[in-house]
Amino acid sequence: MNRRIVSQRTAAIRRRLKRRRISCLIVTSPANVTYTTGFTGADSWAAITAARTYLLTDSRYIEQAQKECPSSTIVQRTATMAQAVAGLVARLKSVRAVTVEKSVSLDDFEALKKQLKSRPKSAGGIIERIRSVKDPDEIAAIKASADIATKVLERTMSKVNAGMAEIELAGLLDFQLRKAGATNSFDTIVAFGPNASRPHHQPGGRRLRKKDTILIDFGARYKGYCSDITRCFVLGEPAAFYRKVFNVVERAQAAAIKAIAPGVKLTTVDSAARDVIRAADLPVYGHGTGHGLGLEIHELPFLKADSKAEKLKPGQVITIEPGVYIPGKLGVRIEDDFLITENGCEILTRNCPHSYQLSR
Amino acid sequence: MNRRIVSQRTAAIRRRLKRRRISCLIVTSPANVTYTTGFTGADSWAAITAARTYLLTDSRYIEQAQKECPSSTIVQRTATMAQAVAGLVARLKSVRAVTVEKSVSLDDFEALKKQLKSRPKSAGGIIERIRSVKDPDEIAAIKASADIATKVLERTMSKVNAGMAEIELAGLLDFQLRKAGATNSFDTIVAFGPNASRPHHQPGGRRLRKKDTILIDFGARYKGYCSDITRCFVLGEPAAFYRKVFNVVERAQAAAIKAIAPGVKLTTVDSAARDVIRAADLPVYGHGTGHGLGLEIHELPFLKADSKAEKLKPGQVITIEPGVYIPGKLGVRIEDDFLITENGCEILTRNCPHSYQLSR
Repeated sequence: MNRRIVSQRTAAIRRRLKRRRISCLIVTSPANVTYTTGFTGADSWAAITAARTYLLTDSRYIEQAQKECPSSTIVQRTATMAQAVAGLVARLKSVRAVTVEKSVSLDDFEALKKQLKSRPKSAGGIIERIRSVKDPDEIAAIKASADIATKVLERTMSKVNAGMAEIELAGLLDFQLRKAGATNSFDTIVAFGPNASRPHHQPGGRRLRKKDTILIDFGARYKGYCSDITRCFVLGEPAAFYRKVFNVVERAQAAAIKAIAPGVKLTTVDSAARDVIRAADLPVYGHGTGHGLGLEIHELPFLKADSKAEKLKPGQVITIEPGVYIPGKLGVRIEDDFLITENGCEILTRNCPHSYQLSR
Repeated sequence: MNRRIVSQRTAAIRRRLKRRRISCLIVTSPANVTYTTGFTGADSWAAITAARTYLLTDSRYIEQAQKECPSSTIVQRTATMAQAVAGLVARLKSVRAVTVEKSVSLDDFEALKKQLKSRPKSAGGIIERIRSVKDPDEIAAIKASADIATKVLERTMSKVNAGMAEIELAGLLDFQLRKAGATNSFDTIVAFGPNASRPHHQPGGRRLRKKDTILIDFGARYKGYCSDITRCFVLGEPAAFYRKVFNVVERAQAAAIKAIAPGVKLTTVDSAARDVIRAADLPVYGHGTGHGLGLEIHELPFLKADSKAEKLKPGQVITIEPGVYIPGKLGVRIEDDFLITENGCEILTRNCPHSYQLSR
């Protein structure tokens, strides 16, 4: 990764470490390792001190790390990760105490405690909070990812026909993602008919029938960055009740979008969508109204009914995705991605039509 | 999941809990939750007491949990997971102390400690060790997964041609997996030419040229169970050095396979393969010689140079995957899946040819 971007990011992290008197942060979350070093492989940690960033990895990834991380000092571990960290820390005179990211597993934390011969401190969310506000390169990557997803959905829907299984349609969509040079940001959800009442339905052998509804929730991952889109379709003419529900969900989403602005509480946006569904006497969804996205498909900020007193900030990228679920009957969800701007928001998935009516 | 299987599994877990005086185990690892309850969704934990198994999940998954987990008591959480666990435990009179799986995040562990108002105990590997020995249904699922992977590789290779990008070939293979009713057990690795020297290469835009080598490392996930296969191919006639290396890797794999038997130390199998590569004066690979596979793509047992004094057991399923990597030049790895039997082993990927020479 570009040295300038890495140095901006690590400077922001170091300011926070200094304020919190952390002399060495052990970064264990894969997305945070990527963010601070540019490394995109697995099984690797980073260590950030006031002077340097170290990437601790193993022989499988050395070639990749040398290519991806020109700003980091690469440490090839041969023993366990905990031993490698203890060895590194012992060589660093400026390090008084080690602080580990709270997302570490208890197992790894205890191994580290044993190797360091003292209990490390722990800290949560330092890099996640910085990551929640995107830099221009990240915004460009998310936009590109949303554009790819939009094109891929269009291409996929042009090939849909009755008789196709959910898993086949999911596979076709995933294939189009690969052909477009991207991967999946998460396992594609394709749900036909009443299967859509399960918000996280796993596509199965159910075949598409005439007059069936289709819910697709998917995203591209491009240059490491995620997009996330949900669309609903009908094969033929939608039933009156389905059309009614779809209209309510569209209005719920519009109400949340209207509420988006920097400085607005997350709970305000969340309840704007829920209120519309409640007013229509439909069941209010149990999931959040939206979430941040970037290197991870779910990251800060989370727009939920119990979100703390946090507020939206310019540069954050979020989804808005209200839904209505009636088991055995139907599921409707509409999801788009938004960049919070100085004045309001910019919709990143604007080119993706809200619904298609399919003739076949 | 079938009540009989669940009750066999939970009986085995309860015997170990009793021996270790654990009155309530909080299961946080997704694969362990699936193994003990049958639940295949995300974001859910299980609690196992002497009398019952509880599945703690949220509104998104209730319908799915009711369908998948007839043997478990389903608890719908509305607050945080830690609050839900504390609430459940408070209602259970038989529970003296709570023990949490060590793979839990430090963050979740501390939240739990706060809600329980006392530090929970932790335990690692209880369910993982039981899971390392497969029951007949699991073996059947892994076999089916290996058969699907074999067919999918054949279909994919019949479509390979010069000019194709790595990511396109990976996408084509993934699509064939979906069409066969499966998904990926991990991100497919496709590496052309010298790119194969990175054991975990991410497929990119590199296009296939005449005389190129192709390394494919991939697996199917079918009914939740993984297979894992690596094959090497050459477009046209392989170079003499490549052929030599390929032959050494084949012999290294054969030596490890010959060493497989119940009661044999993991390190014995590991070094059998390494010795062949060392004797041929080629660089010895930095990764393990193999790993268990099942609900997870990497699980117990791990066949590595530093594996502890553990021994192979009948019913375990492992990969054997030695390789030779020379940066800038080549990478060769051959990987098959094996069931440890009472007398030796059964190769589950036997129908998958070791190499193809491609004419186009």
